[in-house]
Amino acid sequence: MNMPFQTFDEQSDASQCAARLAALRTELAARGLDGFLVPRADEHQGEYVPKRAERLAWLTGFTGSAGLAAVLLEKAAIFVDGRYTLQVRNQTDTSLFETLDSVNDGPANWIEANLPQGAKLGYDPWLHTQGAVERLRISVERAGGQLVATASNPLDAVWTDQPDPPRARAVPHPIELAGETSAAKRARLAEDLKKRNADAAILTMPDSVCWLLNIRGADVPHTPFVLAFAILNADASVELFMDAKKSSPELLAHLGNDVHVRAPTDFEPALDALKGKTAVADPVWAAAAIFQRLEQAGAKVLRAADPCQLPKACKNEAELAGTRRAHIRDGQALTRFLAWFAREAPKGTLTEIDTVEKLESFRAATGVLKDVSFDSISGAGPHGAVVHYRVTRKTNRRIEPGQLFLIDSGAQFQDGTTDVTRTVAVGEPTAEMRDRFTRVLKGHIQLALARFPEGTTGAQLDAFARRPLWDAGLDYGHGTGHGVGSYLSVHEGPQSISSRGVGQALKPGMICSNEPGYYKTGEYGIRIENLVVVRAPAEIAGGEKGMLGFETITMAPIDLDLVESSMLTREERDWLNAYHAQVRAAVAPAMADDIDRAWLTQATRAI
Amino acid sequence: MNMPFQTFDEQSDASQCAARLAALRTELAARGLDGFLVPRADEHQGEYVPKRAERLAWLTGFTGSAGLAAVLLEKAAIFVDGRYTLQVRNQTDTSLFETLDSVNDGPANWIEANLPQGAKLGYDPWLHTQGAVERLRISVERAGGQLVATASNPLDAVWTDQPDPPRARAVPHPIELAGETSAAKRARLAEDLKKRNADAAILTMPDSVCWLLNIRGADVPHTPFVLAFAILNADASVELFMDAKKSSPELLAHLGNDVHVRAPTDFEPALDALKGKTAVADPVWAAAAIFQRLEQAGAKVLRAADPCQLPKACKNEAELAGTRRAHIRDGQALTRFLAWFAREAPKGTLTEIDTVEKLESFRAATGVLKDVSFDSISGAGPHGAVVHYRVTRKTNRRIEPGQLFLIDSGAQFQDGTTDVTRTVAVGEPTAEMRDRFTRVLKGHIQLALARFPEGTTGAQLDAFARRPLWDAGLDYGHGTGHGVGSYLSVHEGPQSISSRGVGQALKPGMICSNEPGYYKTGEYGIRIENLVVVRAPAEIAGGEKGMLGFETITMAPIDLDLVESSMLTREERDWLNAYHAQVRAAVAPAMADDIDRAWLTQATRAI
Repeated sequence: MNMPFQTFDEQSDASQCAARLAALRTELAARGLDGFLVPRADEHQGEYVPKRAERLAWLTGFTGSAGLAAVLLEKAAIFVDGRYTLQVRNQTDTSLFETLDSVNDGPANWIEANLPQGAKLGYDPWLHTQGAVERLRISVERAGGQLVATASNPLDAVWTDQPDPPRARAVPHPIELAGETSAAKRARLAEDLKKRNADAAILTMPDSVCWLLNIRGADVPHTPFVLAFAILNADASVELFMDAKKSSPELLAHLGNDVHVRAPTDFEPALDALKGKTAVADPVWAAAAIFQRLEQAGAKVLRAADPCQLPKACKNEAELAGTRRAHIRDGQALTRFLAWFAREAPKGTLTEIDTVEKLESFRAATGVLKDVSFDSISGAGPHGAVVHYRVTRKTNRRIEPGQLFLIDSGAQFQDGTTDVTRTVAVGEPTAEMRDRFTRVLKGHIQLALARFPEGTTGAQLDAFARRPLWDAGLDYGHGTGHGVGSYLSVHEGPQSISSRGVGQALKPGMICSNEPGYYKTGEYGIRIENLVVVRAPAEIAGGEKGMLGFETITMAPIDLDLVESSMLTREERDWLNAYHAQVRAAVAPAMADDIDRAWLTQATRAI
Repeated sequence: MNMPFQTFDEQSDASQCAARLAALRTELAARGLDGFLVPRADEHQGEYVPKRAERLAWLTGFTGSAGLAAVLLEKAAIFVDGRYTLQVRNQTDTSLFETLDSVNDGPANWIEANLPQGAKLGYDPWLHTQGAVERLRISVERAGGQLVATASNPLDAVWTDQPDPPRARAVPHPIELAGETSAAKRARLAEDLKKRNADAAILTMPDSVCWLLNIRGADVPHTPFVLAFAILNADASVELFMDAKKSSPELLAHLGNDVHVRAPTDFEPALDALKGKTAVADPVWAAAAIFQRLEQAGAKVLRAADPCQLPKACKNEAELAGTRRAHIRDGQALTRFLAWFAREAPKGTLTEIDTVEKLESFRAATGVLKDVSFDSISGAGPHGAVVHYRVTRKTNRRIEPGQLFLIDSGAQFQDGTTDVTRTVAVGEPTAEMRDRFTRVLKGHIQLALARFPEGTTGAQLDAFARRPLWDAGLDYGHGTGHGVGSYLSVHEGPQSISSRGVGQALKPGMICSNEPGYYKTGEYGIRIENLVVVRAPAEIAGGEKGMLGFETITMAPIDLDLVESSMLTREERDWLNAYHAQVRAAVAPAMADDIDRAWLTQATRAI
């Protein structure tokens, strides 16, 4: 094991920016390019990328999970979303890179305003989706320029010590946990391809490949991905393009005769071989290079969603049983942490890093922790208001009485992926903190209690979680819920509970987070996050529609010291008391000593 | 005046279908076409069309407000949405036209399955939007066919007694009601065109033209539209393509020197004259013929929303003052009707038509009624469950004790357009009726009470109105709210309160309906509809965001006999009591005799 799974070092160095940017520009000029786009992305468009793909961080110093640099010969800019506005200014050399908002200012506007007439703007077609390239092309052509796919990445040419691609072992994911054999999954997806008169589907997303083949790997941090492309054929066979070093006799035996492991270099020729055939490719997620290659080869491209995404999101009973076990185990670790925190924090000596290390140690003590599912967000006082805060040795802060402390964390267990946020008061909270916390809690409960007809999207439910804040003229600047994988990515689609939520209806077996929050810049942050499973509720007498609801699976106390119970409706209070009774029953077995048990009893008391 | 504004005759005759369909097919064959599409649409894509454009009704007998017939040489189908499933089967000759659902089955699938390889499918490019044609083309090409724009409409060639286009007088809309001069509107829109480097915008929607020029007309039923195309130039001048018979010296004086009235036949040459220029056209609303003409002429088409739609939807203070007056006047008429109904209905002799005539007479008694804003929906018992029911002499039903009665109606006054639905119990309602009515009311109130941040869309709020029904496993099959014009269309965009609601944020001054319902097929229907204006609410202490909320402007009692008050929260009860106090104050002056006044006092009592 690789513990600790989270480190606290600065991961970037702005002092290198000037030399690296100059080297890139020299390379661009040598290639006859007037500019180049550097996204924070790998060939698979996953949230976590291998070190080799950290090109944006290498060039700009910016280490956030999303961003894009546009480099012209005379100027350069970096675009990040609202989460990273402050971080990018701290990490990059702002004399070299103009820092802009990717949503409001957007690369499109900047390109239109800054790209010289006739200029050639290069991009690596493996690092941009087809959809993104189509949008970029409009802006480049408006500016009178030309968007040019590069045959090889010019940044890689000047990154002399660029790491190799990862080659971690791929391993079978046990059928007891997967709940359905790969052969069965392939058969039902192939059936659907045939119905659509398609010959093949190009699979580019690592979670699709891992889910379909029931395999897991370790190519990126915090997510058990095997980075690989695959082609699913309409006869239910699969070609898996994966470095031989990732394979093993055990893996080959697991994959069986209908899955052909081929070298990554065979992938492009395999696309060429689809000449005259119809191939499904997802313009939202698949690299533009794939579309370009298929079209050049004379294949017919059927633009449609990756066929694994929806079935993967709808967990089967084995996956749900696993994730419930994982959540009880994780809840036990988190509750032990919360009990420890309740004893230690009032002394005023703990730091943010102390809490991350301690929480990881409780999770590791389960004996089956594979990884944390993301870097813990451990925010004391004002740091809690930074939604995607990641503590480093430089930012590490002491947790002081009178503050709120927010910790958002998760685990990768082989039977399930967890993601949970708790906010706790250290010492006496203010009336305002209690008011805000209770509003966030009311929103959380209103979403947890929602019943809705089949076909309802997460976008339709998002406001249930916001209304108690809206009533007070408040809101939070992020979505209410994201999908969560089954020992896969902690953020997965296609569903979400968000106003931007796409058209995907919530379906039985989907796992989502329920995480409203409130953030007061410079003072404190509040977030209450449980994971929920979409389920048919108990039958409603007189009901006419097929209805769905949520089952909460996260098991950890919610800080009652922050709850102003007079603000809760009876229904909300009933939910909270029932939830705490369930938490108590689930986690009590792990509370070894009397002090912890006494704390749990108090923390989960009925109000 | 043209009273009564609503008639109850059957407007269609299926016995003509066979001969008309045969004549059309002969014409198609003569033109070398293998099929033709007949949408229920005119060149402006409005909800109401002139008689000349009732091609779908002429051919198929179907008189609903939306639909499409696809005619091939050997078979034909008509596609309608769920509202019209029953109606289409009653109205058309189902031995000639297969009746299909436009949403689930869809013309696309039918074309793919039925269009012969190599077939030429014709369409009139003036009757389909650009977006619709682009979608159709995909299906036609998948079937191996060809989608062909016809130079003239083949159906018109065989419709020997097709009515002429309407030529009703256009009149100025007074500045006291419009609140902003046409010159000012044109100047601010032209400014925006210049910012987008556009030379002109093509205006195809009659409400855009009427709003921009502050004119109204009478070319279609129930909506004071002038049917005309216009081109807004970046110098703020307008070319208005309108039959000279619609004009008058008074109108020309009103339009002024910067609005050039030209013959309708000049419109296409004017599009040609945009060669080399950039013109805004809306692919969602403008006819494909316009895009084709602009492209052939060598104009650059900027695909974007009709620039009048959003400013038109955000009413100014003069428009809001007018609409509030109109709503008080309309509420007085409706309340007089409700008082009359409360006295007469228990006798069991009233029919649905009686109520429509009586309600129109109360509205006419205001002395300023221009038209009803749509055919009243007057549904007794099971007819109330037919969401878009329109009573005819054939369907007319007696209203009986023990039934619910639903009436959805509206008026066109020069100062505002109204739309209101009330559901009342005749005699003693059942416990189930009271439960369902109270859930609908709770949803209505929850939406009316909503506070939400600027930038929120109607789609985000829609579920507030559904939740009390969802809690009981119930729902309703229509959106919760649509936009409403200012002495214009009773249904207008771009906003809506609906799960399908597009990305348009609600903005101050927008008028929307708030109309949740519940429908029990074969038994009864419930709908409670008020219009609301989007407004900034009173400042919220401690609030951080710019917030919006709704001001309810419809003024008529909600039947308290149907309210189970124990199901209301205190906040909901407070809203209802405050609303009824406001209604009482607003409508009392119109209640001339003691009986009516006593009824009003009782009907608006606090509970």
